[in-house]
Amino acid sequence: MATPQEHLLDWLKDAHAMEQQAEKMLSAQAERLEHYPQLRGRIEQHIEETRGQRELLESCLQRLGSSASTFKDLSAKVMAFGQAMAGMTVSDEVVKGAMSGYVFENMEIASYTVLIAAAKEAQDVQTQQACEQILEQEVAMAQWLREHLPQITAAFLQRSLSPDTEAKR
Amino acid sequence: MATPQEHLLDWLKDAHAMEQQAEKMLSAQAERLEHYPQLRGRIEQHIEETRGQRELLESCLQRLGSSASTFKDLSAKVMAFGQAMAGMTVSDEVVKGAMSGYVFENMEIASYTVLIAAAKEAQDVQTQQACEQILEQEVAMAQWLREHLPQITAAFLQRSLSPDTEAKR
Repeated sequence: MATPQEHLLDWLKDAHAMEQQAEKMLSAQAERLEHYPQLRGRIEQHIEETRGQRELLESCLQRLGSSASTFKDLSAKVMAFGQAMAGMTVSDEVVKGAMSGYVFENMEIASYTVLIAAAKEAQDVQTQQACEQILEQEVAMAQWLREHLPQITAAFLQRSLSPDTEAKR
Repeated sequence: MATPQEHLLDWLKDAHAMEQQAEKMLSAQAERLEHYPQLRGRIEQHIEETRGQRELLESCLQRLGSSASTFKDLSAKVMAFGQAMAGMTVSDEVVKGAMSGYVFENMEIASYTVLIAAAKEAQDVQTQQACEQILEQEVAMAQWLREHLPQITAAFLQRSLSPDTEAKR
C-alpha cells in the first residue's frame, strides 16, 4: 500500500540513477568510436541532453523534498544491464554498441512513459512536464539510432571485409 | 576480417538464443499475472508468435548449414539482462514487468534491424524475408506495450492505494 506520490518519488530516483548510468555509457562509447563520426557526433549531442535531463530530474526531486544525498546509488540492476551491454562490445563493437544504445534509450522511454502516467495520478504537473520534455529527447535519440542501424551495419560489414581496415570502432 | 555471411550466421545464432530467452521470460510473466487480464492475454499471444519466430530462425540456420546442436547456448549477456529485469519485479512487479517486456522487444527490434541489413549485404533474400516477418511482430508487441504502459501504471497506482487489493500482479 503506497500513494501515487510515493511511487512517483521512487521511480524518479530510479530515473536519476539511469541517467547517471547513461552519461557514463555514452561517454565511454563516444570516446572509443573512431571510424563512425556521424554516430559519434549524435552520441555526443545526446550526452549534453542527458546532463540536462539529470539536472531536470534533480530539480524535481528537490521540489519533492528529496535531497541529493538521498538519491539512490546506481541500482544494481541498471549496472548489470550496462555491464551486460558493455560485455557485448567485442569484434562487432560498433554494431552492438549502437544496438545497446537503442535498447537503453527504450528503457528510458518506458521509464518516462511510466513517470508521466504516475505524475498525472499524483497531480504533479511540474514533474509531468519535465518528464514529457525528457521523453521527447529520448524518442528522438532512439529513432535516430534505429534509422541509422542499417547503414552502421552495412558500413561495419564492408570494413570487415578488408584485412587492412579496422571495422569495430 | 570476416564476410557478411559469417557475421550473419553469428547474429542469427544470437537471435535464436534471444528468442529462447524471450519465451522463458514471457511465460514466467504471464503465469504470475492475476489482475491484469488484458496484458496477460497480449503476452500469451506473443508467446505463440515467439515460438514461430524461433522455428523460423531454426530453418534459416539449417539452410545456412548450422545444425541445431551448434546453436549457441543462451548467451551470458542475454541471461544477465533477463535476470536484471527479473530482479526488478518486486512491489511494482506489473509495471516493471511491462517496462522490461518493452525493453526486451526493442532489443529484438534492434537485432532484426541489424539482421535485415546483414542479410542484404550477404544477398540472402530468404533470411532477409524471415527477419522482416519477425520484425513486424516485435514492432507490434513493442507498440502495444508502450501504448498500454500508461493505463497499466494508472491501474497499478489505483490498486496500490487500497490496503485490501493486491496491486503488483
